[in-house]
Amino acid sequence: MLPATASPQEEEDSAMENIVTEKKAEESHRQDSADLLIFILLLTLTILTIWLFKHRRFRFLHETGLAMIYGLLVGVVLRYGIHMPRDGTSVMLNCHVNASPATVLVNVSGKFYEYTLKRVLSSSGNKVDDVSDNENEMLRKVTFDPEVFFNILLPPIIFHAGYSLKRRHFFRNMGSILAYAFLGTVVSCFIIGLLMYGTVTLMKHVGQLHGEFFFTDCLFFGAIVSATDPVTVLAIFHELQVEPDLYALLFGESVLNDAVAVVLSSSIVAYQPTGDNSHTFEGMALLKSFGMFLGIFSGSFALGVATGIVTFTKLRDFQLLETALFFLMSWSTFLLAEACGFTGVVAVLFCGITQAHYTYNNLSRESQDRTKQLFELLNFLAENFIFSYMGLTLFTFRNHVFNPMFIVGAFLAVFIGRAANIYPLSFLLNLGRRHKIRSNFQHMMMFAGLRGAMTFALAIRDTATYARQMMFSTTLLIVFFTVWICGGGTTQMLSCQRIRIAEVPERSSTKHESAWLFRIWYNFDHNYLKPILTHSGPPLTATLPPCCGPLARILTSPQAFENEGQLKDDDSDLILTDDINLAYGDITVNTDGSGVHTSSGAGFASGMSSEDLDRELTCGDNEVVMRGTCLVFPMDDSEPTLKDPHMRF
Amino acid sequence: MLPATASPQEEEDSAMENIVTEKKAEESHRQDSADLLIFILLLTLTILTIWLFKHRRFRFLHETGLAMIYGLLVGVVLRYGIHMPRDGTSVMLNCHVNASPATVLVNVSGKFYEYTLKRVLSSSGNKVDDVSDNENEMLRKVTFDPEVFFNILLPPIIFHAGYSLKRRHFFRNMGSILAYAFLGTVVSCFIIGLLMYGTVTLMKHVGQLHGEFFFTDCLFFGAIVSATDPVTVLAIFHELQVEPDLYALLFGESVLNDAVAVVLSSSIVAYQPTGDNSHTFEGMALLKSFGMFLGIFSGSFALGVATGIVTFTKLRDFQLLETALFFLMSWSTFLLAEACGFTGVVAVLFCGITQAHYTYNNLSRESQDRTKQLFELLNFLAENFIFSYMGLTLFTFRNHVFNPMFIVGAFLAVFIGRAANIYPLSFLLNLGRRHKIRSNFQHMMMFAGLRGAMTFALAIRDTATYARQMMFSTTLLIVFFTVWICGGGTTQMLSCQRIRIAEVPERSSTKHESAWLFRIWYNFDHNYLKPILTHSGPPLTATLPPCCGPLARILTSPQAFENEGQLKDDDSDLILTDDINLAYGDITVNTDGSGVHTSSGAGFASGMSSEDLDRELTCGDNEVVMRGTCLVFPMDDSEPTLKDPHMRF
Repeated sequence: MLPATASPQEEEDSAMENIVTEKKAEESHRQDSADLLIFILLLTLTILTIWLFKHRRFRFLHETGLAMIYGLLVGVVLRYGIHMPRDGTSVMLNCHVNASPATVLVNVSGKFYEYTLKRVLSSSGNKVDDVSDNENEMLRKVTFDPEVFFNILLPPIIFHAGYSLKRRHFFRNMGSILAYAFLGTVVSCFIIGLLMYGTVTLMKHVGQLHGEFFFTDCLFFGAIVSATDPVTVLAIFHELQVEPDLYALLFGESVLNDAVAVVLSSSIVAYQPTGDNSHTFEGMALLKSFGMFLGIFSGSFALGVATGIVTFTKLRDFQLLETALFFLMSWSTFLLAEACGFTGVVAVLFCGITQAHYTYNNLSRESQDRTKQLFELLNFLAENFIFSYMGLTLFTFRNHVFNPMFIVGAFLAVFIGRAANIYPLSFLLNLGRRHKIRSNFQHMMMFAGLRGAMTFALAIRDTATYARQMMFSTTLLIVFFTVWICGGGTTQMLSCQRIRIAEVPERSSTKHESAWLFRIWYNFDHNYLKPILTHSGPPLTATLPPCCGPLARILTSPQAFENEGQLKDDDSDLILTDDINLAYGDITVNTDGSGVHTSSGAGFASGMSSEDLDRELTCGDNEVVMRGTCLVFPMDDSEPTLKDPHMRF
Repeated sequence: MLPATASPQEEEDSAMENIVTEKKAEESHRQDSADLLIFILLLTLTILTIWLFKHRRFRFLHETGLAMIYGLLVGVVLRYGIHMPRDGTSVMLNCHVNASPATVLVNVSGKFYEYTLKRVLSSSGNKVDDVSDNENEMLRKVTFDPEVFFNILLPPIIFHAGYSLKRRHFFRNMGSILAYAFLGTVVSCFIIGLLMYGTVTLMKHVGQLHGEFFFTDCLFFGAIVSATDPVTVLAIFHELQVEPDLYALLFGESVLNDAVAVVLSSSIVAYQPTGDNSHTFEGMALLKSFGMFLGIFSGSFALGVATGIVTFTKLRDFQLLETALFFLMSWSTFLLAEACGFTGVVAVLFCGITQAHYTYNNLSRESQDRTKQLFELLNFLAENFIFSYMGLTLFTFRNHVFNPMFIVGAFLAVFIGRAANIYPLSFLLNLGRRHKIRSNFQHMMMFAGLRGAMTFALAIRDTATYARQMMFSTTLLIVFFTVWICGGGTTQMLSCQRIRIAEVPERSSTKHESAWLFRIWYNFDHNYLKPILTHSGPPLTATLPPCCGPLARILTSPQAFENEGQLKDDDSDLILTDDINLAYGDITVNTDGSGVHTSSGAGFASGMSSEDLDRELTCGDNEVVMRGTCLVFPMDDSEPTLKDPHMRF
């Protein structure tokens, strides 16, 4: 580190200084490790307790609720238990540069240190003193960069949700789910925004407001608390095998409204700065914001779907490569979307859905298991980490603003917003649905409007202003309340609403319930997209008109010919075929050698041996298949009719 | 962000400034995403090409070598292809503080910005100007913090190595492996250090040395290039089913000498500052350094083993929880070791070995697969990432010092150092071994001394001084050369040395070859540790003397009683039992219902159905089982003799 010309004295000084710097860096690294260790141990503790609960079939507290409680406890200990002496590491420099540079080189007695911009502090001088004086180093350390949530923890959660969305009842209720997720979330956002604006105005009159709070802030609050995350409720539904239709409505809505909320909130933020104190309602700006919403959303959607379709893996013989490629492609969707200025989590969601719909059918059996398990694990870890961090934050976040009036207003607004989403929409949807959404279902959906990881991540992303800090503190309370009270009361609510535990799902045909628009799309997908993009489905030669024969032969993969009639992917059967078994009880299976052979190749739905089926049905953690709905396998006995593809169409 | 008292003009200014800052942050985030995307696409490209190679059975270039080539190409493009205008983000501040603070608050025209220390630049003023002037933002961005390698990328690689170390031939050759890894690496380190010191002294005389280069630097260089990583060679061995003994020697040595090298180098660094220009050989300081080596090593070892043993999972019914717990415990070993000042990767290595030895037997069958696959994937991604980054670095690293004389000296020293490790030690070991290490084996081991991920990570960790920069550049060349030339020539070298491809491994008993020390430990482990820590092995009631009966009954898990005689873990059979099948051909299997039942429960070795066995034997990627050695299953037919445990001992 020394130029050859330095004097011996300088050399020694410099060497000593190096030692000090290295020691300091080592110290900081140790501290980081210890902090991360706290979280790992928290998660470990959570896992062990969950195991105990599952073992004892205790259903009132879900793992996420538990993670929050442990987080709270650790937060209390960190806040009040540990008193660390401040080391004088913060130094105030006064300088007169105009811009705020990203990198600063500081000349400290002849040596140059490079510093990078971390954050902007409030501009009031005494506040800076506050921060640098009372700042507990430990608290500062356990506070993550909020972007960690958006760039590391949310993507696996959202992808997993999309990847698990491939199920029968989701497609059956697609229209209703889209209505709740898109229309409902926007309605809820605006209702909550308006109600909060009323509250804030009232607070200003009473003198309770100690900072600025614009209308756009209210709308932003509406957007962030509109994303529901009924993970607790769904876990109980899954365990109790509650009504699959209700499950599909709740799950589908919560997956899609996360995407809506994140795009909505970023559109509102983008709209904010131009009219920074716009108490008035500006039609033009709103339209622009709406255009931005559509742009970001459709861009992310297109990107996600495109990447999902591109991942057309042909590496069946090398499962490790296949899984790695699948993982990398999904991740690159996220990065590509972020690099293009779209929203990564939305892109990842639609990538997940497309991967489940197309790529999944191309994967080897082993890779199907591997990818499912991998994303399940990542989802589990990320989810529990976020919830325990939430608990921790209640005590370690430094700039909480708890305003009783705002909190009461927010709880009311959230309640009313949810009601304004569910009840009117259900009424409208029931006009068109053959299978009505009954009122007890509506009450249950109202009750299950928990707020979770996405709400938290959106709220913590920016806590610079007074308004944002107040929102963040209130959001934390909303999440705690809904997860503990609503989540914990699910079993009671279910029995109170007399929603039956579906031992054997009713035997009903999907054909007549699907919307005509969806059926058109479905037919196109089944006849053209699936044959081109996957090995399943009928070969194109069968679905295209005879004149397109040569083209069809080129586009169809050899496997599709081989497997003609043998292979069909699950959801096609689930939606179109009427004569399928719906209960587990009366399934007939073929256990001959050929069955084993075909299932180990590529088949999923047909040609399944008894072991495969057993595995499918008994694996409790096989989420893609099991979550709330029973997969159904058409039997080989009924297959021969398909050998001649023309008989079918 | 505004206090309520600000004037409208100030408000507007501040709002504009906020927009600028937010825009800048967004821009930087987009850039980060794009950079990461480059690496992801590089990995994707690598995977696709590997697939092509594997498909065509092309063996001259391994995936890691390929990743390096792609990295090189991208590096060239980034360096010479993209010219980005410098944005004036770096600002020089002069101030007179004595210490170098970790955090700096900068007062920029009334607003406070918090900066964190990133790195210390050289103290010569013109060099700083160089850096800030010619710095290509893109190049700076794709340069990762070197600690990323140590804290994120190396741990999964090292853990995977430890977790895959559970195999027959490793235990058979344990003594030799330990000798090569510990004694050999230390010898190699000192030989290389001394030779390099000679080279450096010569360079000084010729006037080729343009900076300081101490003896400790030479020793440090010896330590970092002593860690071998024959991943390329082993992949080919695995594919060709080459001699399992040779495979075990190479694999075992490379796993353990990573640990030795990392502890050795950190001991040398710790020893360095006190005698900063010690051209003389200080006996005392060396002893101190050696003590430090022993301390760090045994601490990390103890920690790793302890955590490995503590993970005594009983969550068999909830595979997701089990896998998550396993993952978290392994990670916490790393963090705990780092927090205690030990070396995380060493702790993780021994944690992996212990997990494989004990915890693995307690896991449910599904979790065994899951954990193997998870760490395999992480290992694959991390390894290829490091190698492609290596290629990139050759062009994007800014302070390369390529000195022809040093490079030639280093290549020679590395060659001689490897020879001084292999040949004398093999001679000494052969004096004690019944099964000699033949000379063609020795030549092959000499040839397979590739340098890889660990060497790179150690070299890039600190590139602050002239000496370190020269070492880093030379290390890069050594890695490139060995991976491409030695790795690519493995097949030729194998046929040249007439090392036969073992179609059917020879039938030999392990009993007589194991060292007596190892056998004592083995018996203790099998009779006492395994029964206490796992469900496998005989119950303690059988192995303890009758007087300890009550104690034994308390310590033995109910499963162990249940499974008495049925359950045995694989390596016990592999080492102790003589009458086992070694070829795949003459295996008799039981396919009745009960066999399926027991194997789905907890059994691994016995009670295996034909499908299980097939899966075991055909899965190419089932590394733990397959890498280089054929697992052997004692058949149920021979089991009844074990029902009475006393018959056995």
